[in-house]
Amino acid sequence: MQKPLILVTNDDGITAPGIRNLVNFMNEIGDVVVVAPDSPQSGKGHAITINQTLTFEEISLDGPQKDYSLSGTPVDCVKFALDKILPRKPDLVVSGINHGANSSINVIYSGTMSAAVEAGVEGLQAIGFSLLDFSWDADFSQAKEYIQNIAKKVLENPLPKGVVLNVNIPKLLKDEIKGVKVCRQAHAKWEENFDERINPHGKKYYWLTGYFNNMDTGDDADETALANGYISIVPVKFDLTAHEELEHLRKMME
Amino acid sequence: MQKPLILVTNDDGITAPGIRNLVNFMNEIGDVVVVAPDSPQSGKGHAITINQTLTFEEISLDGPQKDYSLSGTPVDCVKFALDKILPRKPDLVVSGINHGANSSINVIYSGTMSAAVEAGVEGLQAIGFSLLDFSWDADFSQAKEYIQNIAKKVLENPLPKGVVLNVNIPKLLKDEIKGVKVCRQAHAKWEENFDERINPHGKKYYWLTGYFNNMDTGDDADETALANGYISIVPVKFDLTAHEELEHLRKMME
Repeated sequence: MQKPLILVTNDDGITAPGIRNLVNFMNEIGDVVVVAPDSPQSGKGHAITINQTLTFEEISLDGPQKDYSLSGTPVDCVKFALDKILPRKPDLVVSGINHGANSSINVIYSGTMSAAVEAGVEGLQAIGFSLLDFSWDADFSQAKEYIQNIAKKVLENPLPKGVVLNVNIPKLLKDEIKGVKVCRQAHAKWEENFDERINPHGKKYYWLTGYFNNMDTGDDADETALANGYISIVPVKFDLTAHEELEHLRKMME
Repeated sequence: MQKPLILVTNDDGITAPGIRNLVNFMNEIGDVVVVAPDSPQSGKGHAITINQTLTFEEISLDGPQKDYSLSGTPVDCVKFALDKILPRKPDLVVSGINHGANSSINVIYSGTMSAAVEAGVEGLQAIGFSLLDFSWDADFSQAKEYIQNIAKKVLENPLPKGVVLNVNIPKLLKDEIKGVKVCRQAHAKWEENFDERINPHGKKYYWLTGYFNNMDTGDDADETALANGYISIVPVKFDLTAHEELEHLRKMME
């Protein structure tokens, strides 16, 4: 039987430890092709490159997979892989493992999740994985079995049409992880606080900083599951229509 | 009575005719502050600037509004305006008028709509406007009354919590526009086709190109309304959870 074809991408760049771990985990499940950004692309959301050109290189990294680095965003990587690199439609697209959380509202800023969403728009099965640890030497191995199990389940039972998965993993040892919980996106936002500085020429400049404000303690929210030691799985859709408000809005616009 | 405070932004850049028209339309409704990108930001989606710094300038343009250009993305503009520029929370945030459609799946690639979504995340009333005409000298005046009416309706009757509006305007004369229709996002996607070229040094490079594939002829889809000469209004939400699939997914992950 043909092994599943798995496309791997991320937003931290092709050499990030998070994606190299994910590649190793997926090599045990299928034939892996990596098309990932040649530079860090965190916070790029669903950006695509339309006013600049793209280049790509096949690069040589350890393992049986093929690795291609692209000079674009995570969404560019998915589009480019489908049009120019992959021999056929992949059976699964996985993105990550992100260095840092993409739970709750972070799903809309995340390049990792935008790559998974783009794959969903293309009609493919897709999962984004993120570990709640920003450090470059984070221990991605603790969640290996969980990540492989989630990927296998999706390969065996296709996701509902128009849905991809947002998987976040708490920073815990394997034995401390309590299991997996299917959740909704917690209601939360970033409270921004631009850090003002003065450059050597006397001109003001700013760094975007802020803190994450979780306003949602519901049992079924992803932030709650993570805080309680569970891996959270949120089914994410890209039909952004607020269907439940259509009638109200029709009256309002009369 | 205090006039409403209206923040205006876009993704085509602060000098684009689309935003200058929108500013003029809003000046007749409230006190306008413009915080918009200093350069074109089309296709930037929900990108934020986290690995670079930002600078801004107050610039002088015709009209009673205040204009600030920021060296960032549309989403950066909303965040920066709220934290550093506006004297209080604005009563309305409008983004656009985009040069080109942001109907259907384009909502997720669009910097124009991402600015409106960011304002929604911040708990503000927000609308993105787009005209189905890419040209720089498009005639934005034909839809002036519609745009002002939609803005006034939102100021008078706040939108449901967690919802912003995606307004697309057909390229028609005022008398040809049939009216306004509240719609759902049409099911559609871009079929990408990267254009391969050779640079003067013999290396391949690529331009992202493609065509828009509308797979949805439903009467209630935004593409249908636009094709029939209506202005489409889609209520857009940023809780991306596929709530209707939670139970199914829980069983699948057991």
